[in-house]
Amino acid sequence: MKTIAFVLYPGITPLDLVGPLQVMSVFAAFNPDYRVVVAAETLGAFDTDTPLQLVASHTFDQVAEPYAVIVPGGTEPTYLVMTDERLLERIRTAAAGAQVIGSVCTGSLLLGAAGLLEGRRATTHWATLQLLGRLGADPVSERVVEDGPFITAAGVSAGIDMALRLVGRLAGEQAARTVQLMIEYDPQPPYGPIDWSSVDRDAYGPLVTDTLATALADHPRMLERLTR
Amino acid sequence: MKTIAFVLYPGITPLDLVGPLQVMSVFAAFNPDYRVVVAAETLGAFDTDTPLQLVASHTFDQVAEPYAVIVPGGTEPTYLVMTDERLLERIRTAAAGAQVIGSVCTGSLLLGAAGLLEGRRATTHWATLQLLGRLGADPVSERVVEDGPFITAAGVSAGIDMALRLVGRLAGEQAARTVQLMIEYDPQPPYGPIDWSSVDRDAYGPLVTDTLATALADHPRMLERLTR
Repeated sequence: MKTIAFVLYPGITPLDLVGPLQVMSVFAAFNPDYRVVVAAETLGAFDTDTPLQLVASHTFDQVAEPYAVIVPGGTEPTYLVMTDERLLERIRTAAAGAQVIGSVCTGSLLLGAAGLLEGRRATTHWATLQLLGRLGADPVSERVVEDGPFITAAGVSAGIDMALRLVGRLAGEQAARTVQLMIEYDPQPPYGPIDWSSVDRDAYGPLVTDTLATALADHPRMLERLTR
Repeated sequence: MKTIAFVLYPGITPLDLVGPLQVMSVFAAFNPDYRVVVAAETLGAFDTDTPLQLVASHTFDQVAEPYAVIVPGGTEPTYLVMTDERLLERIRTAAAGAQVIGSVCTGSLLLGAAGLLEGRRATTHWATLQLLGRLGADPVSERVVEDGPFITAAGVSAGIDMALRLVGRLAGEQAARTVQLMIEYDPQPPYGPIDWSSVDRDAYGPLVTDTLATALADHPRMLERLTR
């Protein structure tokens, strides 16, 4: 039995977690070789950046040697968690024996802060891509980036694409297509895809910098590392 | 202050809820006229069809006269909830004064079971479309269907498209585009969109019928209504 473990911590963006969780849960329902768990430090209710709270299925101690570990992101709380050595050590420990190490959105910043992405091609939310380089990774502006055991997704909703690609890797295209059909993932953004040519990326820089400064007010070394 | 209320009940498909919840939460963060809540019968942890549990922010009693009410779906547990008169009455009460009544996936079957979709154009997960007609609605095979105050989405992931369309209705295209950018909703299904021409819809009929029969074993009248 191979365990696919999603990491839960305080303040995440819930769609980062739930998009790929839904994909992998449907996959596991058809593939008894796999099981899916949500792992956290405790089994209490965790806040998110929405009014919803989330409860894990297992503590980290209950999940030994996962086959895959997937880390969701968030905004200010995730930046703070970059300095949470206890959680980073949980991630390092899980990653050490894992065949697949995944992230969604700024979850890759946690992989970077844990020292796992040194020299690895990786991605994150478009507005924080430059931070990845400061954590030792080679930042790539693509929807899903694979490098060895690492599979990192761009912002929030990209976790769905990442997970379907992972199903394809584990069980082939037909398995991924079946999951896609079950979750009816036939996207039709009402105004079309993002028009990147109209996005003023620089305009969002101060927003990221300000949020980082707030999150890391008590952690000047990490703040300097990310913004120098 | 207009309240956008998401309905939580046992056994849902969490992506049905979390997709549009994330969209509307980002929208509300930029629009102080709106607030988002997740409402349930209790503030305990609710199971889902994944290993994750969800906790609401408010009880139904704490949410008076929401501006919008959005109902997620699921599989067997949702079919059973079609006979839960207490929850159906909660939905009717919320819908009575709402300007927007939304659903994702089989959430529209609950709107139908509550008697709200009589003669209305509506949609649901592709595999359960025929059930909608048996609940009085006019089933439409589209990603998002609007009819008066009703906005219904197709299966699971369609809730993201539905919510972005709703943001467009409430605040215009630019607001929807901004939310889309924030959640980086620029979908790239790894094997392309669903190839409907290759989907044998009839092959899934027995799966739905069997699940209905299990869920509604103690509710023969509802079962007969849906499968006769």
